[in-house]
Formats: sequence, structure tokens, C-alpha cells
Amino acid sequence: MDLHNQQEARDMGSFSPSVRYAYLMNNPDISTKYLASLWGMNEVTPPKVAVRTTRAQDFSQWYQEVVQIADLAENASIKGCMVVKPNGWAIWESIQQLYNAELRKFGVKNAAFPLMIPLEYFQREAEHADGFATEVAVVTHRRLEKDVNGKLQPTTPLEEPLVVRPTSEMVIGDSMSRWIQSYRDLPLKLNQWCSVVRMEMRPRIFLRSTEFWWHEGHSAHADMNDAVKHIVDMHDVYAKFLSEKLALPFIKGRKIAQERFAGAEDTFSIEAIMQDGKALQAATAHYLGTSFADAMGIHYQDNAGRVQIAHTTSWGMSTRLIGALIMTHGDDYGIRLPPKIAPLQVAIVASTIGTGTFGAIKAHATKVNNAIENLSYDDQLVKTFLDCRDIGIAQRRWEYMKQGVPLVIEIGNREAKDHTVSIYRRDALQQGAAVLPYRQFIEILPNLLEEIQNTYRREALTNMANSQLTNIDTPEQLRKAFKDNERKNGWLIGKWCGDEDTLEVLKELRISIRCIHPEQSEEIGECLLSGRPATIDVVYARAY
Amino acid sequence: MDLHNQQEARDMGSFSPSVRYAYLMNNPDISTKYLASLWGMNEVTPPKVAVRTTRAQDFSQWYQEVVQIADLAENASIKGCMVVKPNGWAIWESIQQLYNAELRKFGVKNAAFPLMIPLEYFQREAEHADGFATEVAVVTHRRLEKDVNGKLQPTTPLEEPLVVRPTSEMVIGDSMSRWIQSYRDLPLKLNQWCSVVRMEMRPRIFLRSTEFWWHEGHSAHADMNDAVKHIVDMHDVYAKFLSEKLALPFIKGRKIAQERFAGAEDTFSIEAIMQDGKALQAATAHYLGTSFADAMGIHYQDNAGRVQIAHTTSWGMSTRLIGALIMTHGDDYGIRLPPKIAPLQVAIVASTIGTGTFGAIKAHATKVNNAIENLSYDDQLVKTFLDCRDIGIAQRRWEYMKQGVPLVIEIGNREAKDHTVSIYRRDALQQGAAVLPYRQFIEILPNLLEEIQNTYRREALTNMANSQLTNIDTPEQLRKAFKDNERKNGWLIGKWCGDEDTLEVLKELRISIRCIHPEQSEEIGECLLSGRPATIDVVYARAY
Repeated sequence: MDLHNQQEARDMGSFSPSVRYAYLMNNPDISTKYLASLWGMNEVTPPKVAVRTTRAQDFSQWYQEVVQIADLAENASIKGCMVVKPNGWAIWESIQQLYNAELRKFGVKNAAFPLMIPLEYFQREAEHADGFATEVAVVTHRRLEKDVNGKLQPTTPLEEPLVVRPTSEMVIGDSMSRWIQSYRDLPLKLNQWCSVVRMEMRPRIFLRSTEFWWHEGHSAHADMNDAVKHIVDMHDVYAKFLSEKLALPFIKGRKIAQERFAGAEDTFSIEAIMQDGKALQAATAHYLGTSFADAMGIHYQDNAGRVQIAHTTSWGMSTRLIGALIMTHGDDYGIRLPPKIAPLQVAIVASTIGTGTFGAIKAHATKVNNAIENLSYDDQLVKTFLDCRDIGIAQRRWEYMKQGVPLVIEIGNREAKDHTVSIYRRDALQQGAAVLPYRQFIEILPNLLEEIQNTYRREALTNMANSQLTNIDTPEQLRKAFKDNERKNGWLIGKWCGDEDTLEVLKELRISIRCIHPEQSEEIGECLLSGRPATIDVVYARAY
Repeated sequence: MDLHNQQEARDMGSFSPSVRYAYLMNNPDISTKYLASLWGMNEVTPPKVAVRTTRAQDFSQWYQEVVQIADLAENASIKGCMVVKPNGWAIWESIQQLYNAELRKFGVKNAAFPLMIPLEYFQREAEHADGFATEVAVVTHRRLEKDVNGKLQPTTPLEEPLVVRPTSEMVIGDSMSRWIQSYRDLPLKLNQWCSVVRMEMRPRIFLRSTEFWWHEGHSAHADMNDAVKHIVDMHDVYAKFLSEKLALPFIKGRKIAQERFAGAEDTFSIEAIMQDGKALQAATAHYLGTSFADAMGIHYQDNAGRVQIAHTTSWGMSTRLIGALIMTHGDDYGIRLPPKIAPLQVAIVASTIGTGTFGAIKAHATKVNNAIENLSYDDQLVKTFLDCRDIGIAQRRWEYMKQGVPLVIEIGNREAKDHTVSIYRRDALQQGAAVLPYRQFIEILPNLLEEIQNTYRREALTNMANSQLTNIDTPEQLRKAFKDNERKNGWLIGKWCGDEDTLEVLKELRISIRCIHPEQSEEIGECLLSGRPATIDVVYARAY
């Protein structure tokens, strides 16, 4: 049976649902083809590009437009800050829910720690303080009073200024020092969902802002082995989560010393590769050694009664991920959300034109909606919404398309009469709608979502492969790729000698060493920065 | 069949499960009695009071001890702030999950708004500014630098100071002014889960602290009618939620003008009554009129093209609720959590003594755990945890009791051999354990949880009724009850004339008018403060 042939595709309707389902399930791409073959059964206005600036024209401008047309976030009136709008926040809540489930498997418990940190705590770990000193918000007063002009002014200075947390190692370490007394209290694994503040002069929604939302995990362990094992686990969980749920392509590696978190002994990261070939640090995990434990006094008695110092770790990922989703999966129609992370997986748009028959339309749409609500995908009930707003059906369809909803179902007079649904796939806009008996649609729906997830993942991996720069083996070639070709992005694997003096070249080329590549050739080559003999294979890239 | 009789109770084991289940379901109290009748089948050490200070000795001190022994929270090193520990935060997450589901039904959408608010915004609504001016944290600097002594000091002053949000009417209003253009954009219903900061000099964990966590709902409407209808809905949702899920007893009323939220036209509240007879404001809902919309410029075009001003509302409840749960349901063994809000509903404690048979114990305990995980209660899967830690079984049982877990199941050698479970109910500690065949336990488990929920609710309502002060009809009687009897708490319904000069008396007696009572007698009586003729029935109480 060749389902590329339209007639044969239509013939499939004559098979029993279970036969058809088994067939579809055993042929991963078949339902795509099947639906594709039905194209043209419904009248469709060919889609128009939804952005004013396409990716090809100006990726950066395109990004800003997608944020806007998908209604995800906006710049706040407060300099450098953003407002995450309901569509954007729903994505973050989806990430929270799925990632929380992963953390629970490792015995990590959520808690909440103070937003304001005594300035004095920062004093205690010099490297950490240096790392954040230039970008903190400092609370100095506790009261407002009107001046002679009736204008409110800060009054009543605090005895000790407080820093709005840029990260919480210090304040969580303070609690750990009380909670940990004995080796029996270890390991202690905590997590907090919150926002942090790092004063930002060149804000960019989701990617860089004064306030952003994140999770920050913090743990304490009896020794280095246990701490490193844990942080490697957390690094692995990130990789699995970002790959399976967000369908992000990336390189998972270890940071060079100069790129570590301020105060860390070792930093591991996930370097996602965007459509434009630039890297985006999607998550980091740090082994902090004993320096933070020492600064905050996290000690315990071992089983021989000796006082020991704990080894700590921290790991985090932030609302940057929403930016990564846009730049990885977005197209010129808006964002495309991988079904596993989409807060809304199926939008049902019921026509409200022709009020005489709206009862029948609504009844059919409700039946379809209820049937979908009882389906499972990725171990959760399918998330669906029945939209009966009195707005044109095409307008509503495009609204959901811009917002990245994987499947949009339309139900009008004809669908109500024929007990069918018209199906639009976000991953195949050009294809238009396919019309299917609604029972058949219900059968293949989880499979369709999985296909869309896989399509996004596959396309992203292809983009990543295509943006890899190859045949760059000398400093001259590197310079030619980046410096002499200002707009060139892309990433590459190349040699680095490890010398401090090479870092200036990176600045000049506006690129960075994202991480030490997980696979080391062990061969000697030419350092792409110094030209000196070098063995370390690193990932070079322009980065967000 | 009289199940008070032990022999007959045991005989019930001879009925088929479905007959027994039907019987139990039709006799709400029967499984309690049934289990009670089995008391003594297991050896039990009679429980010792877990607190050093009982409720009867010192309610306030008892409260602090429960917070500690249930491991819910602690004072942070930062003055006035608290750390919510994993056990406490899990309760808050449970509240978030259940309340979010209620908000969704009303089309309220979650979003996230900036933590720092320009000082200038506060200037715009005089009453609002006055209400918060004495308790705000003000950010004035954006950098730290070492002074000559090597001590970090704030540097680089901000052009405009920023206020750490004490509440978000202003900053959300700023976004609303951009999001709302037309009557089609209304109503707009938003919600944010976050922490807020109000500098607090006399902190008390969960009840009063500089930083606390809450949800804040904010909406904009076309006119007063729609806004008031919405805020009355939100008031109703609070009442339903707090009553059904948290089993709190309360009076649901309207605040007098002097007790309104700063800037509101009308404030509605839920006044929960604690075991000691004091009131605790558990939730508030405000109709804000047009003053905030005016201050932030929230205008829209109506369907005739005229520019109109929006009417706004806000409503919130906070981590105070955890304090309310303690003071409503706690006893001298710790906190007691109503099953519907308990993050952990059933703890299974598997004995680890006698390693030779631990395989059999663990196998049985795992079977029981898996069976429980597939049960539903209150439309959710039952939350259970299998505890195989190498700690004495009694110690672990008491740990869960202190933390308020509704049911603790013990499984040792005998239970593994006999395929039974030993059941401890948190609402009936004195009763000790009952031993049941595990299949029978699985059958009645949802019913048991519901019984415990109802027991807590019933006991709380009784406490509320008992703490109502009656026969107070004159100012002298009121004074005698509170002023001349300093430690007396309690609440009462009484007349109030409404005159401003009466408020001084309240201060002197250290009581307050919690709300206007929802049922007004319309009769004239004597104002309990002034002695003047009065018609308004209000609720007087000491309050947290």
C-alpha cells in the first residue's frame, strides 16, 4: 500500500480503526504522509508570513517580533526588566512541572529562602563577591517620606545594606549550616524556584534581563566524590530533559576555568545551538568544593565523631530557555512549541458563524474536546482548549499558530454534519488542513503529537549540524570566519592550548570557548587562537 | 449489627469486601468505630506529648514549637525574614496547585511581573502610598565596591530609587494600561505567585514577616458591576477553598472603611477563627474602583468608540495560611494536616529490624505502596511515600505524626507474614494501631481520608463555636471580657455605631472589628464601644 498516493490514502478509511492504528503506529511517518495526502480536501488560504522581518532578513529582529506576536513577554517600564505574559509564563510553568518531577527522583526538595541577603555574606567568598559586585541591586533604606516638594524619598537607612539575591549560595548556605550537624543529615538536596536580580544594561527579553526567573538547586555532601557524582547526575538530568522535552540540540560539556561560575571549582554546562548557529548556555551545574561551606560554616560530624567540612554544589536553568525555544524551533509564523512542553497541545476552534447551526457545532466540538481530554500523551492528559469566541475562525487559527500550539482543530457546519474535524499541524503549515472522521483523529492524536515532537527535534538537529563550521584548523581560518566576516555565526570544534593570553583573541573575534568538548581526540593540533601546539578540543562559538 | 462491640466488629471480616465497603460508606462513622474497636491488636506505646509547652500552657509558645517539631520553617539570619523549609513549602505547593485549578475556572491567567517598582509609581495613588510608605525596602544602588578597609560598600546610585514590591497593583496596572485598548480586552484577569516585602519589626513565622509568599490576583473590568461581581466571586472561591480543602472555620464578611486595603473602595475578607479564639485574616478581596486605573492610565474604548476608564480589583492569600492550619488543627503532638491539603497523605514505615526478613517486609510494603498510589482521593491520586530508612520504626512514626501526615502505616515481620497493615490515624492518636488485611485497608483508604478531613473540620467548627463570647451587650461587658481580663481571647458579634471616635477604644482593648457580619439583624442595640444606639452587627475579636 503506497500512502503517497491520494486515492490509496483515502482508501485507508475502509480499514477498521484498529488495523489502521496498528499500521500507523508501525510506520512512524505514515500518518504525516496520510494527512499530507489529504491536503486540499478543505479550502485553505495559503499562509502568509506572520512576521514583518523574516529569520533570513534579520534573526535578531525576527526574535523580538516572535516574542511579540506570540504574546510571550514585554519590556517592563522598569529599566532592564521584563514582564512575562500569560503565554510565556505558561511555558515556564510547564517546564517547572516536568523538571520538578525529575528532581523528585533524586530526592531534591523544594523550599524558599530570603530574597534579600546581608551584604556581609558576600564579603565572605572573595571570588563570588567579585563575580557579582558590579551587577547587584542594593537595598539601603526601609521607609518613604515626602520631602518639602511632596515627593517621596527613601528614609531610615538600614544598619546593614541588603543585596537582592543575584544567586542564593550564601543565604542557602547559611541555612545549611544549621540544618547539617551529622553525616546522617547528608546529602542535603534543596531547590528553589524564584527570580533573581542582576542589573543589566543591555537587556534582551528572556536572554538577558535585570530580573529573571530560574530554579536554583543547592546540595551539600560528605565528600568530593559524592558531590561530584551528584552534580554529574544533575548535568545528565538537564541533558535528558532539554533533549527529550524541549527538543533542544546541544553540546554537553565542561567549562574552561575562566568561564566557571564565580567561586566554583568546576562548572558543567549545556550549550544549545540556535538556528542562527549561535550558542546559548541553557543550563549550568557547579561543583563548589569547600569554599562556600567554609564561608558559611557548613560542617558535620562524621561517623567517627570528627568534625568535617561539607562539599557543596549548585545548578540552575532559567527563563532563558523560552528564548532558546524560540530561536531553536521558531519560524516566520511565530514560535513552535514541542508538544511535550506546550502548555496547550490542541486548540479546538469552533465556528460561530451561522448561528442557526451553532448548537450542532458546539455539541460536536464539545464531544471532540471531551474525547481529547481523556487521551494521554507523554504520561499526562492531553491539554486541550475549546475556543468558542465570536472571532473569525481563520483569525483564531492564526493566533494559535503564532503561539506555537502543535495542533489546531477546526469545527464548522460541515465538520459537525459529517462528524469530522479539520486538522492543522503547526509543523506543516503549507500543507493546509486535512479532514478526518473525528474518531479516527482521536485514535492517531497521541501519535501525531509525537510526530511533531520528533519533527522539531530532527529539524533542530539538522540546523545544528548545518551551522557547524568545518575546515577551520588555523588561527587565520578562524579569524577569516568570524572577524573578517562580521555577521558570520556558527560553532566549531577546535584545538586550544589553554594559555591565558589566548583569551584576548576571543574578545576581539567576539566569540567564546563554550566548553571543553566531551570527546577528546588526544591528538596534537594547532591552537586556533595562538597557533601554538595544543591538545584540548574545545567548542568555539558566538554566543547569546 | 452493633460495631461498637469488638466481637461483632471482627465478624465484619467475614463479609465480602463489597458488602463491607457498602456498609462502611453508608455509615459515615463506621470505619472509625470499626478501627477503634480493633484497638489493642498491636502493641503500642501510649503517645507522649511532643511539645514542651502545651496549648493549654501557652498557645503562643506552643505555636513556635509546632513550627519547629514539624520542621516547617525557621527565622532567617536576615532580620524579620523566614526560611520556609521543605515540609512547609510542600504545604504551600499543595495550596498553589489546588487554588490554581479554581482560578482557571474563572479564566484567571498566571503571569510574572517585576519585583522592583519605580518609586514614582507610588507617588500616583496617595492613599496607597501612605499605606505602605512606612514598611518598604528601597533599592538605591546598583554596585558594590571595596572601601579602604576592604569592606564592600554600595556604590553607583540609581537615578530613580526602586521599591521592592509590597504588593503589585501599580506595576501590574502599568502593564494593564498597555494590554487593554478596547472593551474586547475586558475583563482581564491575572494572577501572580511570588513573594512580597513589607519591613516587619515584630516578626512571627508565617504570621508576620518582612518577606512572605502569596498569590495576588488583579483584574480589570468595563464597569463597576462587572468588577464587583468578579470580586464577590473571588471572595466566594476563597470561602469554598478554605472551607473544603483547608477545613478552616471562619466568618466571611466585608471590612469596615477603616480596615480597607490602602486605596480600595471595598474590601471583603475571610476571618478564620483559631483554636485560642483569636481571628486571623486568611484572605482578602478588594474592589479598587477607578483610582488605580486612573493612576496608571488603564483606559479602553467602549463599543461606541468612547474612551472609558477601567474598574480594577485585587485579591490575595499568603503563607499565613500555614500558620492558620497550625493554629486551627494542631495539637500537642504537632501539626495535623487536613488530607485534602496534605502533601503526603499516607506514610508507609517499613521495619528494617531483622535483616533476615527485610526482603519479605519490603516486598509487602512495596505492594501496599503501589496499591495506594493507584487510589484516588479528592480527584487526585493518593500521595504516599514508602520509608525504608534505617531508623527505629517508632521514631519514624512519630516524625510523621508531628508533621501531620493523616495516616501512618507500619509494616514489619508480622504484617508481611499475615498480609496485613498496622494503621495509625493522626486524628486518633490515643487509639493506637488497628491491624487490617491490606486489601481491606486499600478498600477503605479514601473513606478514611475523608473521615479525617471531616473530623478536623468538625472539631474546628466546634472550637470556633466554643470560643464565641456571648452575652456581651454593653461596653462594660466588652471591657470586662478583654481589658480586665488581659489574657482573654475570643470573638463575638455585637453592635457598632460606626463613629470614628470609637476606634480608640478598640486600641485600648487590643481588639479590632474584623468585619461587618454577613447577617444583619436590622435591630437597634447599644454600640459596644460608645454605648450609643447602633444598628450595624460587626465581628469583634483579638486578632493575629
